[in-house]
Amino acid sequence: MRMHRLVLIGVGLIGGSLALDLKRAGLVGKVAGIDIDADNLTRALERRVIDYAYTQIDVQSVADADMVLIATPVNTLPLICRQLAPYLPERCIVTDVGSTKQLALQAFASELPNHYLRCVASHPIAGSDRHGALAAQFGLFAQKKCIICAHEHQDETALQSVVTMWQAVQAQIYYLDAVRHDAIFAAVSHLPHMLAYAYVHQLAEAANADELLQFAGSGFRDFTRIAASHPHIWTDICLANRKVLADLLQQQQQELVYLQQCLEQGDAQKLTAFFVKAQKIREDWQN
Amino acid sequence: MRMHRLVLIGVGLIGGSLALDLKRAGLVGKVAGIDIDADNLTRALERRVIDYAYTQIDVQSVADADMVLIATPVNTLPLICRQLAPYLPERCIVTDVGSTKQLALQAFASELPNHYLRCVASHPIAGSDRHGALAAQFGLFAQKKCIICAHEHQDETALQSVVTMWQAVQAQIYYLDAVRHDAIFAAVSHLPHMLAYAYVHQLAEAANADELLQFAGSGFRDFTRIAASHPHIWTDICLANRKVLADLLQQQQQELVYLQQCLEQGDAQKLTAFFVKAQKIREDWQN
Repeated sequence: MRMHRLVLIGVGLIGGSLALDLKRAGLVGKVAGIDIDADNLTRALERRVIDYAYTQIDVQSVADADMVLIATPVNTLPLICRQLAPYLPERCIVTDVGSTKQLALQAFASELPNHYLRCVASHPIAGSDRHGALAAQFGLFAQKKCIICAHEHQDETALQSVVTMWQAVQAQIYYLDAVRHDAIFAAVSHLPHMLAYAYVHQLAEAANADELLQFAGSGFRDFTRIAASHPHIWTDICLANRKVLADLLQQQQQELVYLQQCLEQGDAQKLTAFFVKAQKIREDWQN
Repeated sequence: MRMHRLVLIGVGLIGGSLALDLKRAGLVGKVAGIDIDADNLTRALERRVIDYAYTQIDVQSVADADMVLIATPVNTLPLICRQLAPYLPERCIVTDVGSTKQLALQAFASELPNHYLRCVASHPIAGSDRHGALAAQFGLFAQKKCIICAHEHQDETALQSVVTMWQAVQAQIYYLDAVRHDAIFAAVSHLPHMLAYAYVHQLAEAANADELLQFAGSGFRDFTRIAASHPHIWTDICLANRKVLADLLQQQQQELVYLQQCLEQGDAQKLTAFFVKAQKIREDWQN
């Protein structure tokens, strides 16, 4: 698989890092970046993440694309697909990297019906609290998982091209259906982001927030790292996956009710059993 | 300040690391370690964290101590003080390193009335999910905060000795009263530990827990690191500070109720505002 022209919509951590690796591997000729942030595009050009910069989706920016990779916040996907529709070259593959995959497939199906066979939903697990073109880095995807949520009308060649691309940057490919994908990542990614925001928000509401933060240490640092993640990106992800997430938040409240009762009853045995169960799972986890 | 003999009760991450630094700085002659775990004592002797090993508090193990440093789980403090009382040399200083300071001062006052003036409650902020003598390391306290909760009858010389000791290992000294200390660390340390355990516990309860853990990434890794902390140590800390912690858990439930409502109402604006508030606080935090 070698592409002459990759069009990257959203030149940030994920899209930019992929472009860097593909260029170094010689798997893409030129990368055109489309982004609403002109400063970000300038930085991407300077760092040679992209070769051409555009601020709009139009006949010029999308021309001659072998693949369009959409790496913008997930709720922009329907609009971006709608804007792409008139300009997409006939054989062009479209893929995305978003954290919620039912929404991606819905956007592809409804906004790009003529290209739907060649629309491939993917999700590399390489997010970070860093964002923008300056965050782009070589080797970001090496030994990271990349989930592909193939749909039932998938063109086999298009699917294989996307798989080959991710394998070329050393990602490990997993296949999941979109519903299952969204349920899994609600639990292991979207929920902890909400919980980290919720905890820091609670501190922020305290009258002595500044004093509290002054004494926060390394446990706080790690526990809250993901609360530094981009608020708009995460609003979109959480809303796109809101049904499953609301249930998980409800369950988490029950966990906290239980812990509160353990404290109020001074029940060391129950508290230890609860902590042991969690600690064992976490200690056995290798990733 | 130079000690001939430091008696360390509980030879783990904190006590062991302090012993290593004090020995290297030439501030202590010999370190006697008292621990209920004989294997742990063997490792501590092998690594020269301690010079003498004892499994009991008695006339022999406590003899000639200039200072007794108690570095065991916080709820053991009353019993340990009671056991120490008959054997403590008259001018001996007693200090602890526990995460809850009201309990420490209560134990000192009630169990060591004759030494209470020379009992100094301290709390170095250098915890970790690692524990035991093998976790002991040089330089653990450098540029870390160490809180001193002096009491109203404090002997000035004893206080100064403890302060000097922590400064010698490059800790930064802060003074707080014990009530305030416990409220602050409930919020920035004890609560996040409970929340991390609660989140991992929720995953552990899921029917597909193994599958979920397989797809957990770097966000999960950092968010849950403190859930690998020692369950018994944290049961003790949480129960010792249970009143404040129960209130904080209650508040956190309210944060989650609010987030759940935002999701159910699909309210992007409220959700973003919530995330922005947390993200800004976290991004501005430097420690």
